[in-house]
Formats: sequence, structure tokens, C-alpha cells
Amino acid sequence: FLLSSAALAQPIPSDVRRAAAELRDSALAGSAAWDVVESLVNEVGPRPAGSAGDVAAVAWAVAKLEALGFSNVRAEDVVVPHWDRGTLDVRMTGPYAQPIVAASLGGSTGTPSEGIEAEVVRVPSLAALRELSERELGGRIVFVDHVMERHRSGRGYGTGSRIRGCAHYFAAERGALATLIRSAGTSEHRFAHTGSMIRNGQAPTIPGIAIANADADMLAYAAGSESPVTIRIHSTARQLADHVSANVIGEVPGKGELADEIVLLGAHLDSWDLGVGAIDDGAGVAIVTAAAKLIIDSGVAPRRTIRVVLYANEEFGLSGAQQYYENYSADLDKHVLGMEADFGAGRVWQLASRVADDRLVTVLALQNLLEPIGIELGGNQSGGGADLTPLRRAGMPVLGLRQDGTDYFDYHHTADDTLDKIDRDDLDQNVAAFVTAAWVAANIDSDFGRLPIDTSEQSCAAEYD
Amino acid sequence: FLLSSAALAQPIPSDVRRAAAELRDSALAGSAAWDVVESLVNEVGPRPAGSAGDVAAVAWAVAKLEALGFSNVRAEDVVVPHWDRGTLDVRMTGPYAQPIVAASLGGSTGTPSEGIEAEVVRVPSLAALRELSERELGGRIVFVDHVMERHRSGRGYGTGSRIRGCAHYFAAERGALATLIRSAGTSEHRFAHTGSMIRNGQAPTIPGIAIANADADMLAYAAGSESPVTIRIHSTARQLADHVSANVIGEVPGKGELADEIVLLGAHLDSWDLGVGAIDDGAGVAIVTAAAKLIIDSGVAPRRTIRVVLYANEEFGLSGAQQYYENYSADLDKHVLGMEADFGAGRVWQLASRVADDRLVTVLALQNLLEPIGIELGGNQSGGGADLTPLRRAGMPVLGLRQDGTDYFDYHHTADDTLDKIDRDDLDQNVAAFVTAAWVAANIDSDFGRLPIDTSEQSCAAEYD
Repeated sequence: FLLSSAALAQPIPSDVRRAAAELRDSALAGSAAWDVVESLVNEVGPRPAGSAGDVAAVAWAVAKLEALGFSNVRAEDVVVPHWDRGTLDVRMTGPYAQPIVAASLGGSTGTPSEGIEAEVVRVPSLAALRELSERELGGRIVFVDHVMERHRSGRGYGTGSRIRGCAHYFAAERGALATLIRSAGTSEHRFAHTGSMIRNGQAPTIPGIAIANADADMLAYAAGSESPVTIRIHSTARQLADHVSANVIGEVPGKGELADEIVLLGAHLDSWDLGVGAIDDGAGVAIVTAAAKLIIDSGVAPRRTIRVVLYANEEFGLSGAQQYYENYSADLDKHVLGMEADFGAGRVWQLASRVADDRLVTVLALQNLLEPIGIELGGNQSGGGADLTPLRRAGMPVLGLRQDGTDYFDYHHTADDTLDKIDRDDLDQNVAAFVTAAWVAANIDSDFGRLPIDTSEQSCAAEYD
Repeated sequence: FLLSSAALAQPIPSDVRRAAAELRDSALAGSAAWDVVESLVNEVGPRPAGSAGDVAAVAWAVAKLEALGFSNVRAEDVVVPHWDRGTLDVRMTGPYAQPIVAASLGGSTGTPSEGIEAEVVRVPSLAALRELSERELGGRIVFVDHVMERHRSGRGYGTGSRIRGCAHYFAAERGALATLIRSAGTSEHRFAHTGSMIRNGQAPTIPGIAIANADADMLAYAAGSESPVTIRIHSTARQLADHVSANVIGEVPGKGELADEIVLLGAHLDSWDLGVGAIDDGAGVAIVTAAAKLIIDSGVAPRRTIRVVLYANEEFGLSGAQQYYENYSADLDKHVLGMEADFGAGRVWQLASRVADDRLVTVLALQNLLEPIGIELGGNQSGGGADLTPLRRAGMPVLGLRQDGTDYFDYHHTADDTLDKIDRDDLDQNVAAFVTAAWVAANIDSDFGRLPIDTSEQSCAAEYD
């Protein structure tokens, strides 16, 4: 599959290419992204679905997009669940007395007011958990002790998040009282990583708790003792009444006959509550906002409309993504491409995609424009980002500007997700990648085709490993 | 000041030198240190003065020294203060709403039950704080925003710990309600560093709170707003009744006419409560214990007695050090040398000392034995270690085997002080250094002389910077 550079250039007209390269280079010279994320995390801070921070974030986003010159700025209501972690106290009570650094997982039930104290059964995987019976697990606390792999692609998170989402399901089925997991994260510091324990709608009936790596090591050491390991848990986590949050949307309007077509740039406005949501997903909000802002500032309207969507509640059930899909169901075919920034602020190293096969030549030509900023070509199986899932499953093509995630899971869903983890230059490289791709997608003659409708279903029972 | 290698060798007879080198090399090949610290932090964990962990640590230490074959193992009562941090909640309430990661400083008072909410006055230093008047600070919360320097020697801790110990003194004098400090630590992760706020006996009358670096950055950002920065603090910290803890002592008895002379190897058994006290000072306990254990296992008695002292309550007032000094006041002149390991588990890079000038030649000869493990010669102004202070001020010479402290203050006094921060090989290098120095000190003909009696006094008023 070799193409001459003339052929590579063909799918993107030279004027589009030239303008995209200029936007790319101006992003590298300094974009608005740092100011956006600095403002969001300092002035709003934690913003989990349903919280006061969530309300503040919506107001912040509307004001910010308006101040930056976006058009058609609006907040579209999204009903979101409201889970409150309350307080949590976890202690090893035998064979040694040790406080345990822990965090309730999103959706966890609380304990009875007197707490739970029980013997711990340690397993290395969901497969091992499924092999145990009610006789072995009944009345006990399951501890899934899986060490998540560190990798640039973030691939260790597949297994990690499956354990987070499914351990409670298998454990409760077998009569266990609670689940502990070694955090689905890679931090070498003493942080517990939260995250939703609701997967495929299977809501928990028992507490689910993540513990820090060092604490998991302590439990593993204790498991080598001849005495049983016992744990006491007290948690007031609970589900509250639903709230109304919002997807915040702003546009760079297209001009001409393609103006009703949409190039969607997504990120999510909500965050977990433990940190301030700098890398997850303040960085993404900043990247897509700053990319569109560069196009606004260029003074030249794109042919297609560039729509920035800052989604409500990605973290705890993709409420915003689902609501957007429902709101725009009559308009799905107008969404010619989606891109999401939701993997931190590491440099983009790969352009992956999921587009119609006969449009891969356009992706290749785009990669040619991104090559100077260190971006190689990836495969055509990109998921595109969690918030894009409903649109992608309905046929919308996506690009995946894959960020370096080597240290993403050191901070992800922890108290340590703070502004100092973001490098300004890396952030601007992201903006450069997004603005290049957005400009190209919004201005070429062709689109990226449509994808086959995806109706596959998943469940914990089907996908354990 | 040049000496031939023959002259260098002279102060240490060749048989002593040979045996010391063998001990050094056997330590490098693998010592008991890792097992000791692993056992202490996993089986006892946090052990602040007066806590249940403190009691457990004393029992653990007696059992451990006996099991390792020490002689004259004993626990000598030490009355210790018992401070309880209770609960703490710190929030920025204006101009932005942000939870703040914080830790009460040891000795802090609590707040009234309704908490404190007040405007924040931010200052960069104690000197700047002292320049403000009651009109400026009365009814307000002082925030001392000093960024501690990272350095191998740990020198940034001088200013950091002075701020921790003296800010409340100057603030309360001027009518402030509480003090916040940017943690006296260097962690780039979101940990607040605790530590005693009692310096030179000046007990606090207002709450003293350390906040994480990322949270200090948030306050600094907020201070750039036009609206006042307000903080709400709720703390149940309090002083409880004194407890009886103990210095735990074990010996390798000397043989012959110098057997009543003591070479003291010190470390402290207590820790702060937030972490498990792996680097502070489980590592030190392990280093001095494993060094003496190598001498026990060699089967050859030293001429002088090597005494391992695991001190009670270093962290919150040096109670054990003071009690040891009082218990052995009749015996001070028999303490020919002291060494303490209380700076983590980084490799020893320098041999400093405080000995009589005419014995520096012995220090130089000892450094010659330590050169192969990467240890250079330092100055003759070493403090020797906090627990040695009363003995040193009374005239006991000290050696300072200075550990690399580049990352020590990343973990020091935080929840992140856990076992995974210790490298086994580095720990064994420490044991090698200590066993070499201990063997030499216990077996040479001469001692290290005596130091002039030090009666200098310090106070916050005299030493602010």
C-alpha cells in the first residue's frame, strides 16, 4: 500500500492543507488551552455528576465559550445520577492492625451503620473469583489483587476497569459482603483510584472499594501469615435523587452548502470528586476548546460547522453522551466525524481512526500533516472516546488522536489529578493535532463515509477474563 | 593536609581494617535489614507516641532484638506525650469552593466545634509574617507559602521545619486564628506533610495545618483574584494524657578492658501516623539492627560494647533521647561515639563527623574504608542525628553517615511513607557503612576524644528567617 506524496496530498486540497498547517503551527506557538484548564480546575474544581461543582462547571463552561467567541452557545439539560461517597473507613484488623488507604467506587452501596468485619479471600483475577463457590465466599470480603499494566496505550485499563465493574457482580452472586480491589491504576504513590463500578447497567448490591497499591501490598504480606486476614469497613456511600446537569455546546458555524454538516469535538465537563479533574478531563475540555478558538480567531469560517460538545457525566454512566444522541437522532447523518480528547494531556503519538475503508486515504493524508509533530499512523479500529460511543455505534466515523498514556493512570480518578500534572507544551501539541484534524475534516470535499451499525451487547458474565 | 596511604592506615590497625572490610562486604552481599523493616511496617505499621501502634512497636522491637541474638535486650520506660489528630476538614470557601488536602501538625489545637472561617493572609516567609501587625492579622488565618528546596543534603528542611515550628508562634502573637503552611516537604503528589509544630517548647495555642503543594498552588491562584480568599477549618485535634512508651535497647557486648565503653547506634522506633514509617524511621531501625546483627553473626566480640538504641518518640519532642540521657548521665563519658540512621534509605554518600580535631585522622582512615562504597569525606560539624543531640551537647563525638536525601522529603511525614519507597540494595549499602564504622569505633585503641559542652539555646524569636 504505497502512495506517492502527490497521491497522499490529493484527498486534501492544497489550500486546506496550507491553512491546516498554519493553524497547527500557531497552536504550537501557544494556544488558549492552558488558561482554559487553569481556570476550570482552580475556579470550579471537582465536579462529579449531581454535585454543586457540576452546577458550577456548567455555568463556567457557558461563560467561557461565550467569552471566547463561540456561536450558538447553549446548555442542554441532561438528567444525571447523584452518588455521594460519604465517609469511608477501612482497616485491617487481623492478623495486624493497619489503616488502609481506600476509596469507595462510584455506585457503591454503604455498609450497615455498624460496619462490616469479615475474613478476606484474596484472588488474582475475575476468572479465579468465578471459580469460587458460595461456600468459599459467603459472608466474606473478596479482594481482587490484580496489578494493572503500565503502557503508553493505556491497554492495562481494559482488565483493570473490568475488575472494577464486574467483581461486585460475581462476588455478590456468591454471597460475599463486599469487594476490595487493588486500584485500577498505576500510581506508585498512596492513592486509591475511584471510578464507576457500574458496568453494563449491573448496579452493585454490596460495597465496592479500591485500595492503594501500597495497601494492597500490605494485604498480600498479611495473606502470607498463618492467621486469617480480617478487614473492617464502614461506609456511608449512597445514591441520592437524580439532578439535572447539562451538555454545554458551542459552535464555529460553517459557511456555504455544507454548513449543516457537523464535525464534533468532544470532551467531558464532569470529573471525579477526589481530584480537581485536571487530566480527566480538564485537559480535554481545554484542548478541544482551544482548537476551535484558533479557528474562530483565524477569521475564516470553515465549510462545515465545528461543534464543541462538553459532555455531562461521562464518568458515571455516559448520561450526556446518551442525551446528546437522543437530542440529535434526526440529525445523525449530518455528523460527519467525531473526535474526543479524554486521555489526559500527554502528547499525541498516533492518529487512529474508524472510517469507511475507502476514506482511509484521507486519514493517511491527514497523518502526513501531523507527521511533523510526531504523530504516526494507527489502525482503523479506534473507539474514538467514550462519549462518542452512541454516535459511533449509529454509524458516525471517528478519529482517535491517541495521547501518550504512560503516566495517565498514575493520576486518573485520584486526589492527585491536579493542574501540576499538565505540561503546557504537551497540551499545545494536542491542540495542534486537534485543530489540524478539525480544519481538514471541516473543509475537504468528501466526508469519512459511514460505519456499519453496531448493536453488540456486553455483560460481566460474557466478558470476564 | 596530605597524608600518605601508610599514614592513613595508621589510626586503624590492619586486623581491624581487614575485619571491617569483611563486614562491609558481607553487608553488601545481603543483610537482615530488608526483613527487619518489612516486618516492622507490615506487622506494626503507624506508631506515633502514645498510640496502640507505639505499644505494639515496643513489643515488636524487644522480640526482634531477642530473636536476632542481641544481649541485654531491654525496654526502658519513657513518658511520652499523646497527641491525637482527630478529624480535619479544610475548605476554601471564597472566592472559589475547593476542598483542600491538609494535615494537622503535631501539637495543633482543635477548632471550636463550629469551626473557624476567616480571610487568609498569604505571606512568603516568617520574616514577612513578623512584619505584619495585629491590625493586619487579627481574626485572620495566616498562610505561609514557602516552597521547600529539594537537595541531596536535605538542607531545605531547615527553613521548612522552622516555618512549621514557629509560624503559629508569630501568628498567635498577632491575633491570628490559625496557620496554614505549604507543607515542609517536596512531594509533587497530593500529600500534606505532618510533623511537630512544637519548637523549643513553644506549644501552640492555635491550629496549625499543612497543605499539599497542589493545594497551596490553588490558594496562590485564588490570591490573584479581586475577592478575598476565605478558608473554613474544622479540626478535633487534641492533646491526651501522657503514655509510657520505651526506648528498646540491645547490645553486642564488648570483651576485655574496653567492654564498658559504648559505641551507640541509634534510630527511632516511633513514626508519624499518616504513613507506616518505612523511610522514617523503619529504615534506620533496620540499618542499625542489621549492622549489629552482622557483628553478632561474625562470632567475634568487639572490644567495646556496641549498643543499639531504638528511641521512643523522636517525632514529637525527643522524649526517648532525653530519657536515655537522664538514665545514663553517670555513664556519659563511657559513650565514646554515637551514630544515628534517621534520614531514610538512600545510599550514604558522605562521612561527616563531629569529633575532637586531633582524631580527624581516624575519620579519614575510616573514610578510606568506605571509599569503595561511594562515600566521600565530609566536614566536622555533623549534628549526628536528632536523638543524639543531648549526648552530643554533653560532649559525645558523633559520626554522620549522610544518606542521599534527594527524595526523602517527598515521603517524609506523609501517608506515602510506605515500604515500596525503599530499595534493598541501597539499604544494604547503608548497613555496610554502619557496620564498617561501628566495627572500627569499637575496636581501635583510641577513641574520638570529647566535644566541648554545648549550652546554646534557641527560640523562634531568635531564629526566624
